[in-house]
Amino acid sequence: ESASGYGYRMMTYDTIIHNGTVMTVNADFDIIPDGVVCIKNGVIERVEARSGIDPLPAAAETVDAAGGLILPGLINCHTHLPMTLFRGLADDLPLDVWLNQYIFPAEGKYINPDSVKSGALLACAEMLLSGTTTCCDGYFLEAHVAEAVYQSGMRAVLGQGVIDFPAPGVPDPSKNVENAAAFIEKWRDMSPLIRPSIFCHSPYTCSAETLKKAKKTASEMGVLFQIHVAETRGESDNIRAEHGTTPVGYLDNLGLLDSRTLVVHAVWAAEADVAVLANRHTPVVHNPESNMKLAAGIAPVADLIQAGVIVGLGTDGCASNNDLDLLREMDTAAKLHKVSTLDPTVMDARCVLEMATIKGAEAIGLGGIIGSLEKGKQADLIIMETGTPALTPLYNPASQIVYTADGSHVRDVMVSGKFLVRDRCLLTLDLEDILDQMERLGKSIEAG
Amino acid sequence: ESASGYGYRMMTYDTIIHNGTVMTVNADFDIIPDGVVCIKNGVIERVEARSGIDPLPAAAETVDAAGGLILPGLINCHTHLPMTLFRGLADDLPLDVWLNQYIFPAEGKYINPDSVKSGALLACAEMLLSGTTTCCDGYFLEAHVAEAVYQSGMRAVLGQGVIDFPAPGVPDPSKNVENAAAFIEKWRDMSPLIRPSIFCHSPYTCSAETLKKAKKTASEMGVLFQIHVAETRGESDNIRAEHGTTPVGYLDNLGLLDSRTLVVHAVWAAEADVAVLANRHTPVVHNPESNMKLAAGIAPVADLIQAGVIVGLGTDGCASNNDLDLLREMDTAAKLHKVSTLDPTVMDARCVLEMATIKGAEAIGLGGIIGSLEKGKQADLIIMETGTPALTPLYNPASQIVYTADGSHVRDVMVSGKFLVRDRCLLTLDLEDILDQMERLGKSIEAG
Repeated sequence: ESASGYGYRMMTYDTIIHNGTVMTVNADFDIIPDGVVCIKNGVIERVEARSGIDPLPAAAETVDAAGGLILPGLINCHTHLPMTLFRGLADDLPLDVWLNQYIFPAEGKYINPDSVKSGALLACAEMLLSGTTTCCDGYFLEAHVAEAVYQSGMRAVLGQGVIDFPAPGVPDPSKNVENAAAFIEKWRDMSPLIRPSIFCHSPYTCSAETLKKAKKTASEMGVLFQIHVAETRGESDNIRAEHGTTPVGYLDNLGLLDSRTLVVHAVWAAEADVAVLANRHTPVVHNPESNMKLAAGIAPVADLIQAGVIVGLGTDGCASNNDLDLLREMDTAAKLHKVSTLDPTVMDARCVLEMATIKGAEAIGLGGIIGSLEKGKQADLIIMETGTPALTPLYNPASQIVYTADGSHVRDVMVSGKFLVRDRCLLTLDLEDILDQMERLGKSIEAG
Repeated sequence: ESASGYGYRMMTYDTIIHNGTVMTVNADFDIIPDGVVCIKNGVIERVEARSGIDPLPAAAETVDAAGGLILPGLINCHTHLPMTLFRGLADDLPLDVWLNQYIFPAEGKYINPDSVKSGALLACAEMLLSGTTTCCDGYFLEAHVAEAVYQSGMRAVLGQGVIDFPAPGVPDPSKNVENAAAFIEKWRDMSPLIRPSIFCHSPYTCSAETLKKAKKTASEMGVLFQIHVAETRGESDNIRAEHGTTPVGYLDNLGLLDSRTLVVHAVWAAEADVAVLANRHTPVVHNPESNMKLAAGIAPVADLIQAGVIVGLGTDGCASNNDLDLLREMDTAAKLHKVSTLDPTVMDARCVLEMATIKGAEAIGLGGIIGSLEKGKQADLIIMETGTPALTPLYNPASQIVYTADGSHVRDVMVSGKFLVRDRCLLTLDLEDILDQMERLGKSIEAG
């Protein structure tokens, strides 16, 4: 009896979630129709069918998913969180006009520690409410992004921006890599949820020297090296003209490509580039809506996946999307490549859901701890409502998630065992306050 | 005094909506930041700035838009409402497998008056809750679609399907046009909100004789003639092989193209076809998400608009989208053509919002009565909430509507002066009952 009592206490979970269809997104893509997830100390202890775990064990909290879907928290592999500040400020413009006449001047004038934190707080609120539990970000003044993310309780890889021009927080570009190193040093042990990183803007805004120095620093400090690569045809043409090879080839020649370099965009990756990325085990982030809106082009994602490249999904910043809803991004990703290849079988629902979860986790170096609902993984998960007009009838949960659901279907959001959203309400952030603050900032930006 | 008192009673409105930004979508695309809309007998009597109409006149009901957006109800120009029944049943398949192994057999087995009405009721619920006030539909057993639409209170053009094969409700295809004529006769004066129409499936499933007979009937009865045209490359190639011209050219040779023929898809419209459609004043419906998901191709929409063709926006049926959210469709439409032309200035937010409102109204022959918020037009309008994370800050309402908002932002929906949705609740339909019914039907379809 004493042993049994002891065992009972040992088996008491912090949280049990039941009465929902569990999308494990494990290697077999197992779907458990009436599933149960048991969580203790932020970790998933059991994931199984209700029939095998009846009656439910004791838990501090037992949550009824009400017949909805329980799935891994979504992973947005490319963001610039503070750019919520510029959402909808300038759309439908030629890329150079957009960048040089609107975005760069607005960044120069309005980006400061306070606005960066406010913009990032709004982004965290938007992401959490639409089911994203992890993002991989890159921006200037990233320490202030980190403060916002830390406050929100979400998980993130956060990259301090490196560029060979004076930038907010780094007036002297010769200090850009040192500045990033200091950011990494400061945040590397601050929170188990935050991984610092270096984000080099691009091969056309950073010299070869800067790129190599930044990658060396990232490698030595054991962090992810993020970089925009081959986003536009102009960039690709210019790099070919200057370096005699493609942007991917150029980075490879510099020795920058390995599994801890995250190639963002790769829209103009040539056939040979696909093989290079596969050989170097270099992951790629696909941002279909941003690439579409800026008319950058369509990345060869089906080819990349076919070649074995890990491809995650991202929204990019809010000035070029203009939202952070990864459920909508999944829909677009699935459809865009079907029409661009004229093949309705490419990028099926499973593939795209994996991009937004386990593949995204792998792309940013967190595949061992998040991205699927499996024993031993961190309890980063979301519960989606299904009894809505748009999700009825429900033949195929993966199809419904990818092609029909959007962020408004997300009911609850948990990171590392802690609920951050319950019944569509943020528990860690004061939404009214954030919205008021951003409305004020928006008015001052609009007034010029 | 007596005259003034009489004048006062004359000026009493049924509904006044105030405290919102009015997107008139009139010819000048006027946006009224603090606007007021006054409605009487289902008609818009005044649309103006609050400053010119203060204090507010008397009204049976005064509705506070709470700082949101007031815009014309959205117009979905191409639907197959009952296909909600097959939403997500079969995705990511080659077109012929999808059609011949899944959709056609499912239609043959499960389409009957009850299922058609149930599917259409769900579609109406989904459309209304996401801001669509008018749809242009085509399906079999359309009389039962009409019953659902009538019950919902929304506005619609409803086309009885014509095809040269035995079809649900029309076992003898030689009677297909007569059947459509009978439907039109029955519904032509049933409701001011419902306009019957003929929907010929396509130039490859209807003979030249059927097409001509159907168009003649439509013309004589004064109704819209809808037809799928040039949806896939295969169709285009086959018609070229058989008739020596493109699908558009073939219809033109048959004398079918005028302003009351609605060409659906036009994905493979050649350059000469664009000129033909413009010369014949024949409107086109663009269904970007369906065309993407089925890998049909990308319609030359920017060229069509440039040539002066009226282009409306549609979702197509739920088996190929898989939702009826026209706000999301706008986003996709705007982005798809930017990337396909590599020009970020095409299909700007104004253009796309017009496609989903006034151009859609013109495309389906209702441009004189709906599609914009102007004195004398029917009071078909929606109120969207703006104080959400995704819509903050709000620099440009048209951008936010097109690039950021989705159906979940729609708070209230009015058709012909009558609210059908208030605070996100349907007033005319029993949503729980519809969802239960569709869940049951889904289970029987899944069971085979």
